[in-house]
Amino acid sequence: MASHSSISDTRVCPPVSNMEEPAADSITLEVLTEARETVTCSPLGVINTPMIPWCQTTLPLHVPCNIYLKLENMQRTGSFKIRGVANQFSRRSKGDHFVTMSAGNYGKSFGYASKHFGIKGKVVMPDTAPVSRSLLIQTFGIEVERVPTSCLLNAVNRCVREDNMTFMHSYNDPDLIAGHASLGFEILEVVPNPEVVVVSCGGGGLLAGVAAAIKLSGCEKTRIYGVEPEEACTMYRSFIEKRPVGMDSKSIAAGLAPPSAGALPYVLCQKYVEEIVLVTDEEIKSAVSTLYKAGLVVEPSGCAALAALVNGKIPDVTGKNVVVVLSGGNIGKDELTKFPD
Amino acid sequence: MASHSSISDTRVCPPVSNMEEPAADSITLEVLTEARETVTCSPLGVINTPMIPWCQTTLPLHVPCNIYLKLENMQRTGSFKIRGVANQFSRRSKGDHFVTMSAGNYGKSFGYASKHFGIKGKVVMPDTAPVSRSLLIQTFGIEVERVPTSCLLNAVNRCVREDNMTFMHSYNDPDLIAGHASLGFEILEVVPNPEVVVVSCGGGGLLAGVAAAIKLSGCEKTRIYGVEPEEACTMYRSFIEKRPVGMDSKSIAAGLAPPSAGALPYVLCQKYVEEIVLVTDEEIKSAVSTLYKAGLVVEPSGCAALAALVNGKIPDVTGKNVVVVLSGGNIGKDELTKFPD
Repeated sequence: MASHSSISDTRVCPPVSNMEEPAADSITLEVLTEARETVTCSPLGVINTPMIPWCQTTLPLHVPCNIYLKLENMQRTGSFKIRGVANQFSRRSKGDHFVTMSAGNYGKSFGYASKHFGIKGKVVMPDTAPVSRSLLIQTFGIEVERVPTSCLLNAVNRCVREDNMTFMHSYNDPDLIAGHASLGFEILEVVPNPEVVVVSCGGGGLLAGVAAAIKLSGCEKTRIYGVEPEEACTMYRSFIEKRPVGMDSKSIAAGLAPPSAGALPYVLCQKYVEEIVLVTDEEIKSAVSTLYKAGLVVEPSGCAALAALVNGKIPDVTGKNVVVVLSGGNIGKDELTKFPD
Repeated sequence: MASHSSISDTRVCPPVSNMEEPAADSITLEVLTEARETVTCSPLGVINTPMIPWCQTTLPLHVPCNIYLKLENMQRTGSFKIRGVANQFSRRSKGDHFVTMSAGNYGKSFGYASKHFGIKGKVVMPDTAPVSRSLLIQTFGIEVERVPTSCLLNAVNRCVREDNMTFMHSYNDPDLIAGHASLGFEILEVVPNPEVVVVSCGGGGLLAGVAAAIKLSGCEKTRIYGVEPEEACTMYRSFIEKRPVGMDSKSIAAGLAPPSAGALPYVLCQKYVEEIVLVTDEEIKSAVSTLYKAGLVVEPSGCAALAALVNGKIPDVTGKNVVVVLSGGNIGKDELTKFPD
């Protein structure tokens, strides 16, 4: 478990000016089912990604359980984000000029969708994100502004106030979360009653969506675990402080290191998630390499759930059906060479 | 289609001293079925690899057909070679000292099996193979000798004559081919009557085994295509000259560039394979990058079948069930960076 000497540094996550506080009770089975239909039929080409049993891989296994890997690294745009984006865009006015903030994966899906629908968009990125990500997002015709992480929200607020843009949130949005929930339904179609589901957690949108889909589908006994990096454990701290908090997150898994836990994801995770467990950056790096050797391209953020399982962070899995979501595969070849063999 | 101005350079493949000429009629359904059982139950942990439909990937598709990808890049030791090796070792005297020649994948499987069974072994490698491959094979306790490609057979013959080693062939061996045939049976378990199957071809062991398994299982109408690099088209030339020939092969796909087509694979391919088609190294490189972006680590040799399909080299696929074998994933991170984005 991580030490939390700086836990008093946590901050209540600040609001974005045009964002209403979303209500958790808007996330019903009916809403999620409708969103799943929207995502499945989306012209963006969202994929029902493969789910393969562990025994069809060469991954070493030290726990006698039935593991399934949901290969969301093979998703359109390289990560799960397109699921939520597909539902968000289907429910927004196409005439708006959207702005968002993202370290990469959400921005890529946002750009992909904006280009597809012919919508103007802007992504505010932390200046710590690889420049290659900015360039990629710009190829979709999207404006990119790079700012220090601490200035992200201010930059977005300025776009909303001064440039009349509409903010689209990358994790704290009920439409987004409902879109992500489609991944939960797909899991249940392959493993109807999983005992354990392990999902990485950044702002918490994916975790909240998957957990809500599974629990609202009647799998009351399924234990759902969120996984965060030790140095970017906003949801973990939010669980302790019983409110969504922010911190100066940092991790090799940039997608899991937003400045704060999402308010709506926090409420949903409190309701549906068993526990948040933590992994080190070293454990994440090792998982990237292990998966690479097994034939799969998975980015650090996409590996956290696997890293938690193989490092014994998920309790009571012996003999159980365990689903592990590999949430994204956006890692450049050059980046890969920095990881251990 | 490749130009073949140097076709007169082809050579009849030379023999290795202790190798009997294997008979094609030794490859019966009964033999292949028994080998499949051996491979499945092998203590080497051979994997029934995933086969995923194209629609579960982000790969661009320009042909309206139902494509399935057999992910042999996720196989134990990173390639299909372990299938044949598992059957070879099960049928050899464990007291022997084995020698083989390989540019990489067979050597890796050979080394893996030798270590597992505690058997002494030596791999003669072309000096064009990456040094990293030699080092990897040595980690299994295997002796490696690097020689110019033209000296491979002489070096092996010397080991057999002077050091009393037993030669184990990396593609021209009925036990090996029978082991590779297990991949064909696995295909039929997912797609019982595929109209088209596309397999890469080096010496021809995999192609022969898969084709024999499918045809002998009663799928008489299945068209099976072998794919070779233009500059390493030994089987293609063998089909023209109606005998197994050798050439000065060179390709980015080192595993598909042996000095000659195998004699037994040649006979089996003549019998069971529709046609050999050719791809360029550029088409192979492009397929490596396309698969990487889709989340899969596949080496150049493992990409040839896909390269053939996406470049329109496989005739009459519209509306058909088409199986494409991605035969291996052994590519270092450093090597990957040399490929186009």
